[in-house]
Order: sequence, then C-alpha cells, then structure tokens
Amino acid sequence: MSNYKQMTEEDLSYIASFMDRDRLLWKDEINEEYSHDELAFERSYPDLVARVISAEEVSKLLAYANKEHIAVTPRGAGTGLVGAAVAVEKGLMIDTTLMNHILELDEENLTLTTEPGVLLMELKAYVEERGFFYPPDPGEKSATIGGNISTNAGGMTAVKYGVTRDFVRGLEVVLADGTILELGGKVVKNSSGYDIKNMIVGSEGTLAFITKAILRLVPLPKKNVSLLIPFPTLEKAIGTVPLIIKSKSVPTAVEFMEREVILDAEEYLGKKFPDNQADAYLLLKFDGNSTDEINAYYEDVAQICLAQGALDILIADTEERSTPVWKSRGAFLEAIKAGTTMMDEVDVVVPRNRVNEFVEYVHNLRKEIGIRLKSFGHAGDGNLHVYILRDDLPEDKWNEFLNLAMDKMYAKAKELKGQVSGEHGIGLVKRPYLKESLPIESLEIMRGVKKAFDPNNILNPHKVCQM
Amino acid sequence: MSNYKQMTEEDLSYIASFMDRDRLLWKDEINEEYSHDELAFERSYPDLVARVISAEEVSKLLAYANKEHIAVTPRGAGTGLVGAAVAVEKGLMIDTTLMNHILELDEENLTLTTEPGVLLMELKAYVEERGFFYPPDPGEKSATIGGNISTNAGGMTAVKYGVTRDFVRGLEVVLADGTILELGGKVVKNSSGYDIKNMIVGSEGTLAFITKAILRLVPLPKKNVSLLIPFPTLEKAIGTVPLIIKSKSVPTAVEFMEREVILDAEEYLGKKFPDNQADAYLLLKFDGNSTDEINAYYEDVAQICLAQGALDILIADTEERSTPVWKSRGAFLEAIKAGTTMMDEVDVVVPRNRVNEFVEYVHNLRKEIGIRLKSFGHAGDGNLHVYILRDDLPEDKWNEFLNLAMDKMYAKAKELKGQVSGEHGIGLVKRPYLKESLPIESLEIMRGVKKAFDPNNILNPHKVCQM
Repeated sequence: MSNYKQMTEEDLSYIASFMDRDRLLWKDEINEEYSHDELAFERSYPDLVARVISAEEVSKLLAYANKEHIAVTPRGAGTGLVGAAVAVEKGLMIDTTLMNHILELDEENLTLTTEPGVLLMELKAYVEERGFFYPPDPGEKSATIGGNISTNAGGMTAVKYGVTRDFVRGLEVVLADGTILELGGKVVKNSSGYDIKNMIVGSEGTLAFITKAILRLVPLPKKNVSLLIPFPTLEKAIGTVPLIIKSKSVPTAVEFMEREVILDAEEYLGKKFPDNQADAYLLLKFDGNSTDEINAYYEDVAQICLAQGALDILIADTEERSTPVWKSRGAFLEAIKAGTTMMDEVDVVVPRNRVNEFVEYVHNLRKEIGIRLKSFGHAGDGNLHVYILRDDLPEDKWNEFLNLAMDKMYAKAKELKGQVSGEHGIGLVKRPYLKESLPIESLEIMRGVKKAFDPNNILNPHKVCQM
Repeated sequence: MSNYKQMTEEDLSYIASFMDRDRLLWKDEINEEYSHDELAFERSYPDLVARVISAEEVSKLLAYANKEHIAVTPRGAGTGLVGAAVAVEKGLMIDTTLMNHILELDEENLTLTTEPGVLLMELKAYVEERGFFYPPDPGEKSATIGGNISTNAGGMTAVKYGVTRDFVRGLEVVLADGTILELGGKVVKNSSGYDIKNMIVGSEGTLAFITKAILRLVPLPKKNVSLLIPFPTLEKAIGTVPLIIKSKSVPTAVEFMEREVILDAEEYLGKKFPDNQADAYLLLKFDGNSTDEINAYYEDVAQICLAQGALDILIADTEERSTPVWKSRGAFLEAIKAGTTMMDEVDVVVPRNRVNEFVEYVHNLRKEIGIRLKSFGHAGDGNLHVYILRDDLPEDKWNEFLNLAMDKMYAKAKELKGQVSGEHGIGLVKRPYLKESLPIESLEIMRGVKKAFDPNNILNPHKVCQM
C-alpha cells in the first residue's frame, strides 16, 4: 500500500490559491496522455497536473508536497521511453511545457539560458539562426530540453561533441523542500566542492526539479557533408567503424542501419531513401569550417570503407540532399512502432569496438527465440537501440519472449563491458536491469545520494535506484 | 580533540603483513615533503606513509582504517595549492606515485587506461608520440593524473576542449570500506543511474580513492599556431577577449599576462621572452588539422586585436618559436614564488566577460591595502590566479592584509557570479570561502553525499565541505 497522500479537494484549493485554476488539471480534467510516456506500458494517472510557469510556483508546490507527503512526478513533452514520467504514486504531476521561453543568448560567454519546457527542435533552430550550435542531437527533437537534461540525452553527435551533460554549464533547480538553488553558472571551469549539478543531470527528476538551464554553445560549423555508404552485410558495415575511429578522422556522427528499417521509414514517411538496395548502411556526417579539412576526412574514410567492401559512396554535400536522409533516420523509431502492435526497447551502450559482437548476438537471438527484433543505432559511440516487436503474440507468449530477450541482451551487454542505458535512462521499467548490472555498493551510494537530496522521498518515487 | 586513532606499532605490523616494509614510511622515516603540499602554510605529518602499488593494497588499507577509525589522506605528487594532501588528523597517508604505469592505449575506443600516479607530462608525451592528444593542460605538468582528476584540473585549453572531468570516461576506485568499484568504462554515453563517477571527479580524495582511470583521447591536431600580442594596457588586452569569443573563432587557449610577471619569469628561467616592452599581453593558441582553418581564425583575431589597440602581432608557427613561450607561461607560478618570502593565492573563476572588472578590482586593491599582488590567468575561460606576496611583512601585518585581500577578492568574485575555485579546489584552506559563497542547502547536500560514500568519515577529513 502506498504511504503517499492521495490528494483531496482541499489540496487543490490550497494550490489554486497561488496558481491560476486554468493551469491546474484535476482528476477527470486530466487528459489520457498524462498517464503514460511514449513507449512504456506502465500507466497511472496523477491526481493533479500543475502546468507551472515559474520557479516560484514550483517552489511553493514542492514545499507543500514535502510537508503533506504527496508524490511529485515531473513531466516535459512525455517523449521518454522508460516510464520516468509515469505518476506511479498518483499525487502531483508538474508539467513544464508552459515554461517554454528562451531567456538569453550570451554571445560573449557562448551560453544560452533557457526554461526547461523549450523543445529541443526550437532551441536548436533558435541558436542556429544566430550562427551558434547546440550539438546534442537525439532523434526525438520534440522532447523538452529539461527532459534531455534529466536523462542526459545523447543522440547522434556524441562521437564528436559529447552528450547533454557536456553542455550544461549551470542549472537553477528547486529542491524537495522548495528551496531554489543555483548551481554552476556561466563559468567555464569549476572546482568548488562536489559537483551537484552533474549529479542532477541524468537523475530523471528524482533529486531536484530543473527550472532553468545555462547551456554551452559552440560556433555553428560553416560546412557539413554526409556520406551514405551501402555495404553487402551489416557485419562489414559495423566492422569498419573502429577502423574509421583509428584513422583519426573525426566524424560528427556514425549511424548504422539495415535495409528493413529503411523500408519501414520509407513506408512511414511516404518518401524514398536515396538507396535501399544494400543489406546495410553506414551514415556519416562530418562538420567543420574548412572544406579542405572536411574533404580530407571524408576522402580517407571513403577509402577505408571501399577497402572493407563498401558497395558505393553516396555524398550529400548540400542541405537539400542531406536533410531528407537525416529526417528519415530521425523517424526510425516511429516507423518501427507503426509496423507492430506493441514494442519495448533496449538502449544499451558498449565500447564501440564491441558493437559487432552485440549486433550479431541480437541477430542470432531473433532466430533462437522466434520474435521480431529490429535494431539501429549509433555505431560511432556504441549506443544501440533494439526494438522487440509483439506483432500478433498473445499476452503470455509476449511476456515470456520479451523477458527472455531482455535478460539475454542485458547479460550480453554486461559481458561486453557495456552499460544498461546509453541515453534513455532507467526510469521505472529498466530498474531490474540496472540492479542486475551494478554492484550493490553502487546502488547503495545512489540511494544515499537520493536521501541527501530528498529525505522524504517525494520526488519521482520508485524511479532509477529505488526498487 | 581528534576522535581518530593515532597509529601504533601494532597497526604498522599488521600493514607490513601485506605490504613490503620498504614501501612503508613510519614516523621518523617520513620525509618533510609529506607534511605539506606546494603552497599551503598548513603542515602536519601522518603517522605512516604507504607507497601502494595496487588497488588490492589500497583496499586492504582502507578496510583496516575504516575498522580502526584511522584518518586516511591520499597524496600524489604533492603539487596541490589548497592543503588537500595535508594529513590534518595524522593517521595513514597513501602515496600513489609508485602506481605510475600507463596500462593501455586503445586506438579503437580512443581511450588511455592509466594508474593514478602517472605524471601529467609523462601521460601527455606518451599519447602525443603515438598521434593522440590528451587536451587538459594545467601549467603544473609534474602533477599526477590522479591529482588532476581529484581537483578536476582545468588549465589553459578549457576554452576549446573543456577540463579534466570532460576526459574521464571511467574510474576504478576503492570505497572507504575497501570495496573496489568500477565506474563508467570505455563507453561514450551512459545514462545508467546517478553519475557517481562525476561526483568523485573533483572531490579531492574525500569520497573514494582513485586507483585507475580510463581517459578519453582525441586525435593529435596536425598544426598549431601561437600568437603573442602586446597591448598598451591590461584593460585593453582583456577587453579584447569577449570580442574574440564573439567572433566565433575557436582559440585553444587565451592567456593574459603583465610585463612584471614576464620579467619575473625571465629572471627565474634565465631566458628572454620574445617581447617584454608592453605593459600587457595576450597569448593565444589555435590548433587544427588544416592550415586554412587556423589561418582564417588567427587572421580574424589579429584584425580584432589591432582594432582594439594591439601594438603588434607576434606569430609563433613553429615548435622552436612557440615552445619557449609556453614554457615561460608554465613557469609563472614558480617565478613569482621565487621572488618573495611567502605567498598565498586566489583561483576564482568568473564569466569571461567579467574578467576585466575583476582584474581592475585587484589592481585597485593593491594600492588600497598596500600589498603586492601579482596576477595572470586564463582570460579565455575566466579563471584567474592572483598571488598575494608577503615579502618583508611581519606575521601580524601579513595575516591582516592577507585576510583582507582574500575576503575582498572572493566577495568581488561572488558579485560577478563567479565561483571560489576554477581549478585548484577547496582542500583545507579555501573552506571558509566556499562556505561564504554557497547557500547552506548546497553544503548540506554535499555533506549528505559525503556520508553516503564514507559514513565513518575516514577519507581526507576536514576537507572541502567538512567544516
């Protein structure tokens, strides 16, 4: 039984005393979408959704929830894939999507200050129009930046630029007791005590509520070139990646994909991919400020690929040619989802020279279990997405096959010195695999950290390390 | 009175049962250098110095110290500047300098696996000989890499590449109870629970003992060019930096220096600097793989500097010309130290467009208090080093002036939205300023984190947030 307070009309009245009633959704007013995230099967309605517009509102809400012992679930755009935004203990859901203002572009410090509810696609467009670049590039561009920070989202450019964490210079957060705290700032360096800011990045709303972020920008690269490279087999495609890395060229992104996923995307988008004849492809991007530099890189890489058996080198050196390819890549998840009744996913990351072993293992598992699995992913950084498709399987078989496939893939990732999640996080549904993958001492430290931040455990209970 | 156990011959005997006696220094056998670090006035001898060679030894030592409640102080090369390696509670000092082996260069994953006692200069030379680059570049190259990780050392290249934290992919650490834990690994992304690894980076030996690190490397840039740019005044020099950043060129380093510090370095090294006629200088470096790109950047920057009143642009585009300049820069601290009887330092970091305000404040403070202050620093990242010189001041006056200068400078940094330490850390001596600069809630979270890692508080007590 839950030890959290289920909210009453009285709680609603109190909260409506400092928030507009039309930004509060109570019980039956709550839309179905607030009961789940993008993929997870887990569903639960909060008692109240508060669509906040300021840190002060969040502060009042948390101070009240902390006193009354009401569970609090943060929610951005709901694009998560691990159930982190599901209100397992009902209570209060705080929706950040109205905190959607970009506050300041500081060109002298190369920072962007933003509210958490700004969508990644809006943020990226805003800075690019002004000649700056926010490199993290998850496929899902309609996520909020607050959600990206909460999962330490990675995306396609990690191979060159790093992940969301590497671009968070400062945060304003609200602690469980309502205290508003500024962490970091516009400074480039900081060795002033333990790094609380980095503990909050990737903590999936369990340690503090993010109300503002100061992000690091870089100048927008003047040129970029994409290469689509067909290979006769996936093994040959992926086996080429460590050689590309070893060659000391610096790709911005290295993705791998199989024909069947390309066909899914063509059908889903109703648009042709530039090529769909080969079994497997690498898709690479290079960026920089000088044509010479980029050309030198991609000519080297083209030679390496051809020597490894690539069937062709398709060059997209204009926006018109490269944008559709990357748009297709961004739609893979949706396309796979559209082709089945239900699915779950694995988001492991392994050292990049072990990707082939993992992918081969997944291929064999497909036959062994007799379930459809589709995969694509970030060959350049070792982060793989494998989708397990239910199709027409009855409930019991689906659960049996799904669990079997999950257990085996996570065990394999561990054997290859990988980690449970490269970028999607742990949330609710990956907890058993996190538990399996980490020594008990790591989990105990995490729980101790949770206690230091949130002694009454009101912030997103049952998530990440709480099991 | 201390509540830690002072070590006895019995403790020594037990430890000598699993460690060679000639790697244990007991009481009178302990050299004076183990009683202090590079700059701090604080001195205290440990009872025992253990020169460990493996994580297993560290594990046995910590398990024993934890059981017996013996304070443990980690020590690398002793180049710290804030007293972090001073054994305030005596007890056990663990010296890492014999753990000085580079374990693996993995060219496919672009990682270097190393023991903590390897010196930064050895590590950098090792990878550069093989065509790779470890970018963090603190002036003090005889520090150990374990020490660099423990302080999250920054250095001169943070403006382009980031700090030590950005290059730590994985750690092997020993917890206070002796548990050996692996954190992270060779993976490029990781969203698998709270980021314990990043909590340990910069924690100055208070959370866990680092026994191995997996560092991220990048390909060695093929070319670099340095520019030494004399300005009529320091204000004009520093005022140019935000314009350089805004111009979207990407310098690898932007340092500022005044003539008097250059003269100190010339005297200390017995070597002439390429120019010493101007009051102030900017020293910039650009690196990359194409001459075109670098030339475009530095031509832009040269134009900006000339428009701002620069007196000349001295270009060093060969190793022979640039190495001596950067060597001089690396010797500034030693050169200043050689010119006075005693000194202390401030290592604040401010947003880079506030550097001029801070430096001007320091200049005025010099006259106001009547004490010699010398400064140089990382104009490109806002991290400033100000040295307060004792010269012939009697004890009481020195303490009075020093405290006054410190208080005023830290207050000014806070006003400018800066932080207490950019890269040297907090250790023992900066704790009052950390306390002053942070809200109590931040300190309480830090103490809660400390407790989660080290419940008996044996690891480097009285450091960072413990006051």
